[in-house]
Amino acid sequence: MASETPQNGAASETASPVVSFVAFKPQLFVEAPKANDAVVFYKNAFAAEEVSRSLNAKRKADQELPLVLSAELKIAGASFLVADTVDDSAKLVKSGGNGVVFCLESENIEAAIAKAVSAGAVAEGEVAECEGACGGGRVGKVTDPYGYVWQFCTPAKKAVGDVEA
Amino acid sequence: MASETPQNGAASETASPVVSFVAFKPQLFVEAPKANDAVVFYKNAFAAEEVSRSLNAKRKADQELPLVLSAELKIAGASFLVADTVDDSAKLVKSGGNGVVFCLESENIEAAIAKAVSAGAVAEGEVAECEGACGGGRVGKVTDPYGYVWQFCTPAKKAVGDVEA
Repeated sequence: MASETPQNGAASETASPVVSFVAFKPQLFVEAPKANDAVVFYKNAFAAEEVSRSLNAKRKADQELPLVLSAELKIAGASFLVADTVDDSAKLVKSGGNGVVFCLESENIEAAIAKAVSAGAVAEGEVAECEGACGGGRVGKVTDPYGYVWQFCTPAKKAVGDVEA
Repeated sequence: MASETPQNGAASETASPVVSFVAFKPQLFVEAPKANDAVVFYKNAFAAEEVSRSLNAKRKADQELPLVLSAELKIAGASFLVADTVDDSAKLVKSGGNGVVFCLESENIEAAIAKAVSAGAVAEGEVAECEGACGGGRVGKVTDPYGYVWQFCTPAKKAVGDVEA
């Protein structure tokens, strides 16, 4: 009698794309043009350390200072971002019902969104180039079932003077 | 002629109390009793890792499961907390205008609050024992000039199975 090859327990599964994140950063939107004041406040109040800052190159004539697209601060080794609300971010913030967006940096934004959507999140718009959001580069977002907005972006490029975590 | 003792440049300053933070964690409030669902979602959607969880011991008769006081999750080495809204947190969330509170862990809560207030924040209530908020223990909070709520608490006690950052 021929012996059958024993079946291993592990069933063949359709592998979902590997999604990994290199950073998680809450982004706090502040009514423009107060983001600079907010950065100063967080430094004074919580001894936050400024890691980097990107400014909006398109300055309106009546603005004394360019708007802050994203300033990265650190407290206790953890990063958060402060940004002036601009047209897009105002929409984004309204869609989340609050002023905070959670940024997740990943090399594979489409796979990250697909995984989140398959878990119950709702995709918001298309993945697009978006200057200054999180680390800049390509950005996509989802709203989770609890009303929070999660923004996926390509990893932040290290600026001169960046502090390693 | 007697030589005068040279004056050092450093003027005598009134030293402000040293405030340092050991952790920064956004806390996401979720309409009770959905925090457990939210934790499952964040695991499925973002491969978040659960570090610890504290439950409300006071379970109401009509509740099948105790409410989540605070579940700590990690993505990309960064921690965030998920909690069911309860009476106190609902007030706290309303006062901040959104569902997110930023927790800062410090051994010296009073000094941290004093420093934040001197920088322009508004203290909210008194420092009090507060089970489950952030790491538990003593808790105080302030609202910053931009509407965000910052909660100071004594450092989280490491639970069995905690993963070091």
